[in-house]
Amino acid sequence: MIVDVSKKILIVGLGLLGGSYARVLKRFGFHISAITLDQSSIDYAIKENIIDEGSTELDERIIGEADLVIFALYPHVFVEWIEENQGLLKSGALITDVTGVKESIVYKIQDILRSDVEFIAAHPMAGREVSGVENSSDKMFIGANYIVTPTEKNSSEAISTCMELGRLLGFSNVTTLTPKEHDEMVGFLSQLTHCIAITLMTCNDKENMEKFTGDSFRDLTRIARINDLMWSELFVANKAALLEQMNMFIDKFNNLKTMLEAEDVEGMREMMRHSTQRRALFDKK
Amino acid sequence: MIVDVSKKILIVGLGLLGGSYARVLKRFGFHISAITLDQSSIDYAIKENIIDEGSTELDERIIGEADLVIFALYPHVFVEWIEENQGLLKSGALITDVTGVKESIVYKIQDILRSDVEFIAAHPMAGREVSGVENSSDKMFIGANYIVTPTEKNSSEAISTCMELGRLLGFSNVTTLTPKEHDEMVGFLSQLTHCIAITLMTCNDKENMEKFTGDSFRDLTRIARINDLMWSELFVANKAALLEQMNMFIDKFNNLKTMLEAEDVEGMREMMRHSTQRRALFDKK
Repeated sequence: MIVDVSKKILIVGLGLLGGSYARVLKRFGFHISAITLDQSSIDYAIKENIIDEGSTELDERIIGEADLVIFALYPHVFVEWIEENQGLLKSGALITDVTGVKESIVYKIQDILRSDVEFIAAHPMAGREVSGVENSSDKMFIGANYIVTPTEKNSSEAISTCMELGRLLGFSNVTTLTPKEHDEMVGFLSQLTHCIAITLMTCNDKENMEKFTGDSFRDLTRIARINDLMWSELFVANKAALLEQMNMFIDKFNNLKTMLEAEDVEGMREMMRHSTQRRALFDKK
Repeated sequence: MIVDVSKKILIVGLGLLGGSYARVLKRFGFHISAITLDQSSIDYAIKENIIDEGSTELDERIIGEADLVIFALYPHVFVEWIEENQGLLKSGALITDVTGVKESIVYKIQDILRSDVEFIAAHPMAGREVSGVENSSDKMFIGANYIVTPTEKNSSEAISTCMELGRLLGFSNVTTLTPKEHDEMVGFLSQLTHCIAITLMTCNDKENMEKFTGDSFRDLTRIARINDLMWSELFVANKAALLEQMNMFIDKFNNLKTMLEAEDVEGMREMMRHSTQRRALFDKK
């Protein structure tokens, strides 16, 4: 479906991610519309030729004409939108999302959705410390991962279309995971790292530390500058998987502490060699 | 004393740091000698005009002629060297070091040292993931911190000379701390961050994670590639201060976990706002 540029694409939530989607897809020739809260985002996007048309209202014509609808909203806002407005969607429309948690969202949406509309979930693993359509970029997805999380309710056609969307957007890796696998992986690689960064940043309020800081501390706390509204919601929406990852981390950290208390140099060296070896896997290819 | 380039400087341990010291100081016109384990390091440094002369032996003439001796050795090797070889030092010589821990080293050396030789301790807070004189650079210290940790045994002249050395080497910030303040600060900013990185890197051995990793995880584990011999020794040498920092981190991390378990969104948001605010202090100026 997606390769047919006569189809109309609607983006709901025109921020950093939604805007970047719009920029890339507009370039391919698709008709792009947007629904978002701020008129200024619509005005900017039209002026910059990122979208063809947009509205801050639930414009029935725009919604009813869209063949593909991309939801770039906070998780609970996405669920509420579907609950309240799914009657406006075109019969046969495909919908997808950018939500960073899956298990708590995907099954809920698929359960309440009309049977003539299909929801195929995806997570574009890309972001920046800035927000808003003004900061969006058509280069944002180069080198990044796009993960589609199908369930047994999804058609193979929808899965293919969604993966094709990821490739069109410019993602370097397009793969599928189950919602559960996705949430474990994100819990570890992304959410746990944010928990660690904000803890490190707030566990010691001694003054003047910044005068002595080097790159190590800066690297570990880059993501400690965090959108509190979004991340608190993502943490809660992935509570079980994240708690499991936090417990794994605490156990290992306590192991290290025990070795240090006992001055078990050989044990610490073994852990460090394991760390060094495993880190090599994560080098940028 | 140091501004007088007729003085002779000896570097004991010609690796990454010692080599970088030699490169900068040679450029100023000082006579630079080196004592180190590998003949290949001496050969390389002479060929590259980083040092004037060097030896893999305890060359009595070289040691006896040095006005300033810079020890760039592992902590326990430094202590052993002084215990065994301090008789070879010139009367009136000033010695300094690059050791990353202070309380467990400085007083020990000052206690055993001859009364006609002065030890003023310093910590150049700079490093790279590579080692060896071949990787040394005369640009290594730009933007970095140089911390002098005097005790009541030090003369004000030695403190001034050591701070002047830091400025000559190109460090952007040259300051003093007590050995205890230094160790607390390094325990938090450097050692705790390494503990966190190696824990994160080894707490979850699930395969194929690297396929999905993004910049957050890469940033938090850059320093998980670690010299096990050096860091295990540094951890033990700063055990009390590091354990205190580890406990502060664990307490805060457990707070966050408790908030997540209780779905205390407001509490998590407050922590995130605190984190965001505090991180701004640590931006590169």
